[in-house]
Amino acid sequence: MELSSLTFGEYSLVYNMLSFTIASMLAAGLFFILAQHRVAPKYRISLIVSTLVVGIAAYHYFRITGSWADAFMISETGNYVASGKPFNDAYRYVDWLLTVPLLLVELVLVLNLSREKSGPMLTKLVIAATLMIGLGYPGELLGAESMFSERGLWGFLSTIPFIYILWILFGELGKAMEGQPERVRVLFRNIRLLLIFTWGFYPIVYMAPFFGLTGSESIVAIQVGYTIADVLAKAGYGVMIYAIAREKSINEGYQLSAA
Amino acid sequence: MELSSLTFGEYSLVYNMLSFTIASMLAAGLFFILAQHRVAPKYRISLIVSTLVVGIAAYHYFRITGSWADAFMISETGNYVASGKPFNDAYRYVDWLLTVPLLLVELVLVLNLSREKSGPMLTKLVIAATLMIGLGYPGELLGAESMFSERGLWGFLSTIPFIYILWILFGELGKAMEGQPERVRVLFRNIRLLLIFTWGFYPIVYMAPFFGLTGSESIVAIQVGYTIADVLAKAGYGVMIYAIAREKSINEGYQLSAA
Repeated sequence: MELSSLTFGEYSLVYNMLSFTIASMLAAGLFFILAQHRVAPKYRISLIVSTLVVGIAAYHYFRITGSWADAFMISETGNYVASGKPFNDAYRYVDWLLTVPLLLVELVLVLNLSREKSGPMLTKLVIAATLMIGLGYPGELLGAESMFSERGLWGFLSTIPFIYILWILFGELGKAMEGQPERVRVLFRNIRLLLIFTWGFYPIVYMAPFFGLTGSESIVAIQVGYTIADVLAKAGYGVMIYAIAREKSINEGYQLSAA
Repeated sequence: MELSSLTFGEYSLVYNMLSFTIASMLAAGLFFILAQHRVAPKYRISLIVSTLVVGIAAYHYFRITGSWADAFMISETGNYVASGKPFNDAYRYVDWLLTVPLLLVELVLVLNLSREKSGPMLTKLVIAATLMIGLGYPGELLGAESMFSERGLWGFLSTIPFIYILWILFGELGKAMEGQPERVRVLFRNIRLLLIFTWGFYPIVYMAPFFGLTGSESIVAIQVGYTIADVLAKAGYGVMIYAIAREKSINEGYQLSAA
């Protein structure tokens, strides 16, 4: 990414949002660990997977924050200018490669379907998610003038598994929800909407260079947008997974133990 | 290792794969700790050993990532050139010296054989694994022109304990599997295949200089290959050990506790 000169306010906004994300991810992880006993034992595995997701994200946000700080230096006019060290945005792809499949895994696990149903569904979703991220990465490294550049091609290829994932979430998985209690179905519909809403942000950023959005304001908007999307899609999503697990536990008569 | 000049893409690919490995190892370790209660108490020792393995690996990958970053600097043309500081690949040997015996220990432990069987088997495997790594190390430090150089000799010596390990895994340990449930035997066969497949990568890298593979593309391929092999052989292997432990626990009527 070409780094423009940033004002003090622009540089700080990104830096502080990155730090906000670290705090959010760590706090969410602590909650998922500490709240384990509030859900029935069979649902704890989805809280464990939520913990891994926010833990992996926290690690990458530490790295991204460091890289952001290294990529700039203060000029004599008080602006932040490129230091010469590149800002490594690829940490995000590495993060998604691990966390996106896990996000789908926690969703399937919390529904507690039969082994025969959940096994093949997990395999399909994990492969599709890995392909989606893996196919986006080569395009991210390329600059792009138009939607019909090589970047556009990789973006298009990456969209195919994305649509496949949506198709499973609304088809096969939607159908599996029919036997679930009303409140769980509402929560499931909400978490699916959160997923589409937050994941929808990533292709928008991917396409930003096609519309000439590469200046300092775009860089700031993209980084701030990424952090908000990540906090919602990982920490917020995990809290919703917890709500589903808690609701199902209560429905099945699970009592908080006295221990 | 002679360091060639690398393009930005080559340098970044290795750096990002090293960082990916740190994240994977840490996440796997968190999982092995948090998932303890999902297996019967007697199998938890193998999850503990898995945690040590990925913990040790995470530590070494932090070191390797730092050494990689220190070994290069950005030139005026935007390429990465040797900074003069050596890239310390020997961290890998130190890592293996600790982790390879532990990987064999967790495999034997999860099978939960009788003390009379597992004790001598563990002793033999740990000694063989230590010899295998120890004998490979002196050769790694030497440059090599041909397979009949000193490097080739150490490589050959290191292969002897490797074959002995395979002989135990397929002979004595294979026989001990006969009384186990069908799904456990399938998992055991898979983990043994994973072990051969991933461990097989290391001698290939060891022999790379014999075939003149020392340029920048070889360095990148070797480092990326090492990270993939390590993630599979440690984190992936640990997840398979967990699957065996979980399967055996369910078979023996272990219930997730409510506490």
